[in-house]
Amino acid sequence: FECVAVREELTAGGVSQPGSFGDFCHKTQQSLLSSASGYSNYRGVLNWCVVMLVLSNARLFLENLLRYGILVDPIQVISLFLNDPYSWPAACLVIVSNVFILVALYTERQLSKGSFTELVGFLVHCTNMAVMLTFPAAVVLLVPSVTPVGGVFVLGTYTILFLKLYSYKDVNMWCRELSTVKAKKLARSLSCKSQIHMHIPMFTREDMYYFVFAPTLCYELNFPRSPNIRMSFLLRRLFLLSFHQWMIPIIQSSMKPLEDMDLSRMTERLLRLAVPNHLMWLMFFYWFFHSSLNFTAELLRFGDRQFYKDWWNSESVTYFWQNWNIPVHKWCLRHFYKPLLRRGFSKKVSQSAVFFLSAFFHEYLVSVPLRMFRLWAFMGMMAQLPLAWFVGHFLRGNYGNAAVWISIIIGQPFAVLMYVHDYYVLHYRQEAD
Amino acid sequence: FECVAVREELTAGGVSQPGSFGDFCHKTQQSLLSSASGYSNYRGVLNWCVVMLVLSNARLFLENLLRYGILVDPIQVISLFLNDPYSWPAACLVIVSNVFILVALYTERQLSKGSFTELVGFLVHCTNMAVMLTFPAAVVLLVPSVTPVGGVFVLGTYTILFLKLYSYKDVNMWCRELSTVKAKKLARSLSCKSQIHMHIPMFTREDMYYFVFAPTLCYELNFPRSPNIRMSFLLRRLFLLSFHQWMIPIIQSSMKPLEDMDLSRMTERLLRLAVPNHLMWLMFFYWFFHSSLNFTAELLRFGDRQFYKDWWNSESVTYFWQNWNIPVHKWCLRHFYKPLLRRGFSKKVSQSAVFFLSAFFHEYLVSVPLRMFRLWAFMGMMAQLPLAWFVGHFLRGNYGNAAVWISIIIGQPFAVLMYVHDYYVLHYRQEAD
Repeated sequence: FECVAVREELTAGGVSQPGSFGDFCHKTQQSLLSSASGYSNYRGVLNWCVVMLVLSNARLFLENLLRYGILVDPIQVISLFLNDPYSWPAACLVIVSNVFILVALYTERQLSKGSFTELVGFLVHCTNMAVMLTFPAAVVLLVPSVTPVGGVFVLGTYTILFLKLYSYKDVNMWCRELSTVKAKKLARSLSCKSQIHMHIPMFTREDMYYFVFAPTLCYELNFPRSPNIRMSFLLRRLFLLSFHQWMIPIIQSSMKPLEDMDLSRMTERLLRLAVPNHLMWLMFFYWFFHSSLNFTAELLRFGDRQFYKDWWNSESVTYFWQNWNIPVHKWCLRHFYKPLLRRGFSKKVSQSAVFFLSAFFHEYLVSVPLRMFRLWAFMGMMAQLPLAWFVGHFLRGNYGNAAVWISIIIGQPFAVLMYVHDYYVLHYRQEAD
Repeated sequence: FECVAVREELTAGGVSQPGSFGDFCHKTQQSLLSSASGYSNYRGVLNWCVVMLVLSNARLFLENLLRYGILVDPIQVISLFLNDPYSWPAACLVIVSNVFILVALYTERQLSKGSFTELVGFLVHCTNMAVMLTFPAAVVLLVPSVTPVGGVFVLGTYTILFLKLYSYKDVNMWCRELSTVKAKKLARSLSCKSQIHMHIPMFTREDMYYFVFAPTLCYELNFPRSPNIRMSFLLRRLFLLSFHQWMIPIIQSSMKPLEDMDLSRMTERLLRLAVPNHLMWLMFFYWFFHSSLNFTAELLRFGDRQFYKDWWNSESVTYFWQNWNIPVHKWCLRHFYKPLLRRGFSKKVSQSAVFFLSAFFHEYLVSVPLRMFRLWAFMGMMAQLPLAWFVGHFLRGNYGNAAVWISIIIGQPFAVLMYVHDYYVLHYRQEAD
């Protein structure tokens, strides 16, 4: 009987005798991997992926490191851009882009002085931007010495500039609207001006070119700046940037089965293409959105480093598109989606319009450099709308997340495969005939 | 001038004109992947690993599913355990283990009644547990029809039982100590007994066998229980349990290079073995520590589901060993480490003793079934001590985590490779001679 009483005492947790009994060692709780636990810290899994990637390709890594050292073979890189070493169409086009930047700046200067009316300014901006999209596309289509890689590079640069100058025009217009209409607010702000500590950006070339090089698409009058350039941060990014080249032979070796492929077995080719294509996309993501943009931002002391959010946890397709590319998402929201809403369009229509715009630019960046108009990229983007509807309605949590991953891993190479197939048929079949 | 003032106003963030200007869209912040951000939610990366594993092996998965359906070929499984279908030594040994359970229960009953003195009880327990470790080992060594897999299964079962009965003996002894010495506390506890709502476990067979089957090594007088068995949870675990069989052909196909390997090239063999070995270990971890133990716990309404903690984030070797196997860690802490501390040993010595005990059991579970005494497993465990010291002193954060992963991925197959090599030399070289 005595022991029973002590058992009660012990079990109730009232007595803790660290010297003689130790603590009670069980309590009701869930396993961390059960979805009920709500646990989500898997930083270690990310490290595991990197370690596994390095270890399972250690021999290739080492060979490549010994053979090339720190630099990728520069001749090989240049040959991607150039067919004809005596004409550099891609480089010339990039230099010419300065004209459009200066036209936009000049127009805004005239508008601020009142030399241009709003209508004239609007027409000049529209012409400028229309030429920005059509002129390089025409050059890429008509000049045969532009390679596909060079074409993508040029059109990518012009598209980014287009989005930047559109934002520049909008913000300056909003600024003028405020200054003319809201005189009351202005007066109030002048009275409490003393609190404001800032530098005043004018329509200077410095201000313009800072915006052109800054890792954002949305113009703002004063960007948040970091206090100084951290050398250690720069060096770490630079190290990671140079580290990517060691993955090139892995991609090359996994692309080999593609070269001697049997054209009839589409499903197997798709699966074979999917994994290396996806790894390349992940590498591109890390290289561009993390390493490169952070490197640029650090150099320019640009404060806002949010170039992506946690898209890897997306449980719906819309969440993925809203979070993987923050500069473009911000631009779309500020200069396209919200203006559409203000003009009275519904959310559904505006959202579809954003996907439509994105689909247009995807197609523009692929079709023109390849000189093939097949609409695969366009349809791939537009297919996101029904996919988003399906995933949003039927899948949730980890299942939704897995569905998003599958759509990224399978969907993308499907479009790529279509272009590869058509490019192959167009160029190599013709030669064979 | 007016526009400048408005710029000031706009930039200071004082005016928010959602209708005409939108919000300021930049603020100073870090990228999520930068270590400075402190961000760690990578649940999606775990899903990515699963999706990639399934997709890159989709063909093998499908083939295996079509060929075997829901069940693994049962004859193949049985053949792992049996050489001679007319004698089932492993099964017999498992049945015999009930004798040791009942001896421990009987001894405790006699001790609680006072029929045994403390000394007699201690001696009976010691004899019982010594026989538990030596008797199955002797049978496995001497009966030739025990296969290695059967041997590991039997010795694993007996080791788990040994740890459980040791804990059972300790807890009941602590309970008696409390009941005899602390009469004062007892009296107090009796006065507030009415608050306590519990069932009182006696030395019954039900109580004993609940503990034997419960997914824990630490005996407690009243385990926390979940209110009911969730059928959906059971079914999901069962589905995941059966899902594992589809990975078997992947492991088999990645083990193929091992069969026709050149014995001289040790480093390359190590790397080739490391990845499939590691994946097998991860599978085993998930299968045993998540699926199986949760399944058992749900069936027994055992409340404490903490079978592992977040070892994937370990930044030091000790953290890994403390968190990957919670039942054993709890046992070591409660019945070995803390008793040692109480007897006046230092923390360093006690920690080393825990690793020594763990090394002993690792060796016991490998050497006896293989009938080879090579001490590789023992030395592998003991090598954790200097490794822990090194990682703890020189590496931190993500680097520490990567080091732990590498030690798991490389260290384990190194020991395995040693045994494989010796087993091969012992069995196939002799036949060839």
